[in-house]
This record gives sequence, structure tokens and C-alpha cells, in this order.
Amino acid sequence: MDIRMQPIGVIHSPFATKDECPIQGVYSPESRGRVEVFSEHEAGLQDIETFSHIYLLYLFDRAGKIEYVRKKLLDDAAHGIYASRHPCRPNSIGMSIVELKARQGNILVVDGIDVLDQTPLLDIKPYIPRHDHMNSACEGWIANVEFRPKPPGRE
Amino acid sequence: MDIRMQPIGVIHSPFATKDECPIQGVYSPESRGRVEVFSEHEAGLQDIETFSHIYLLYLFDRAGKIEYVRKKLLDDAAHGIYASRHPCRPNSIGMSIVELKARQGNILVVDGIDVLDQTPLLDIKPYIPRHDHMNSACEGWIANVEFRPKPPGRE
Repeated sequence: MDIRMQPIGVIHSPFATKDECPIQGVYSPESRGRVEVFSEHEAGLQDIETFSHIYLLYLFDRAGKIEYVRKKLLDDAAHGIYASRHPCRPNSIGMSIVELKARQGNILVVDGIDVLDQTPLLDIKPYIPRHDHMNSACEGWIANVEFRPKPPGRE
Repeated sequence: MDIRMQPIGVIHSPFATKDECPIQGVYSPESRGRVEVFSEHEAGLQDIETFSHIYLLYLFDRAGKIEYVRKKLLDDAAHGIYASRHPCRPNSIGMSIVELKARQGNILVVDGIDVLDQTPLLDIKPYIPRHDHMNSACEGWIANVEFRPKPPGRE
């Protein structure tokens, strides 16, 4: 099965390089981005502004080679790619939850952006607490890992 | 830009038809599914079992024609496709959060499945409360909508 997709827009962010880019939006709530939805998709944004948070699905278009097991930014132990959000993954789909601050036509102004500038956008979905808050969820291997700044040059 | 993807596995569920399929996993927490990850991707599952919940990204491979604005199952008013999780959307990417009950090699046993049987799997990501719980999030247009059962024959 060969699946084909096309970008529905492009994400503009302050981050031109991987070294500048935060690893998760919650650690950079003040990072502002602009999500440009191509005009032919603009009608699909109707009522998006009723949500405070949205999921962005996008393409990790500058990710390196896939490694199924690798050390992560947060931890010195190796973990499987599906037990992490690392960009170097099959199908290269990235996901971020951002705060929707404003809509200006086909532009969504968002805070907590953690993606590279010019990232191709694949989809937008509303974040809906009654569906998406998993109150019983555990933190998995992340539980005992303290956040630490990203070392320069490490993907 | 032409983006190409390949399934990394297939989702087995009790739901052969859209009429049987729940609209969100939280409304069918007892629905058990089996996520089969193709053997060439199995190494990437290392440590997935440390998480209680995971995101499944998959292809809505039996969705109908895209409608940018349409009435939703939950509501009689029309909303934009990006303000909803409806399957009939550009790029046809679906997302579900499920509870991971067990791992048996390349098979993940999950509860709260809400996808059709034989759905092509695109990615798995861990659900991490410290990154994914948006405590200040609002419910958007869903806020005043009561859950109601899906009418038969309605997609």
C-alpha cells in the first residue's frame, strides 16, 4: 500500500535550526508560531476558534535516518522509536499540542510551538479535554527523567 | 510536494462496519483491539510497555468524500473539518488515544479502540501526561453538546 499525502499548509516558527527548537511545547509556552492553512482548505477552519488548544500534525521534513532504538534527548538510556516522539521515525509524522491564540483568516496564531520554521502541515484536530484527558495515564519511562536542556548539535 | 507513507502495521478491532464503530474511545472503554506492528518495526516498540496510554495514528482508508464544512455526529450544526475529528478529511489521518493493556511481541493489546477492523497503522506515540495534559483547555463547540448514540447509516 502506497499512501500519498499533500501538505494542507505550512507552519511558521522562530526556529530555523534543530538546535534552536524546543523539544516539547510545554517547555516553551511563549514560543509563538503562525500556522498558515492554504486558502483552498480555509473553509475547513470554521469554528476552530472555539477551541483553546489544537493538535498539529506535520511532516518531520528535515529528520535524519530512522533508528528504531536510540538514546533520547531526555535520557541516556536507549528506547524504541514508538516509545518516544523523536523525529527520526517511519512515516515522519510529528504531533504537537499548541494553544490557539487567534485566527486571522487562514492564519492561526499559536503559542507553545516546537517545530522548525517552514514545516509542512498535514492536519489540524481540536484538543477536546473530555476525549483527550487520560487522567489515569502514567508517564512511562519518562517518569524518573528530569527535563534537561538540549545539548547543542544533538538531534 | 508529494509525501509518501507506508503502513507500519494493522489495527484489528471488533468493528467491521462504520455503524458498529464508536465515535470516540472514551465512550467505549471496554472495546478491545489488537495493534499488529509489522515485524520489521518491532524493535521500535522497546519500552512501549512502560506507558499506560498510547496514541495511534492511522489511515481512514474507508472514509468518504472530503467535505470541508459538515454536520457532525454530535451536533446538528455544521462545523469545519479541522474543528472536528471526522474521517472525511484531507490526508485521511486518524488519531486515537487507547489504553495499553499488554504487549505480546509485535502485538499490542489495547482497550478503548474506536477504529474499523483492518485499519492501516501509520505511527504510535506515547501519551505523556506532563506533555499532553492541557489543564486550561476548553471544549470548544463540543462544550454544550451532549453525547448521543450514532444514528445508523450516518458516517
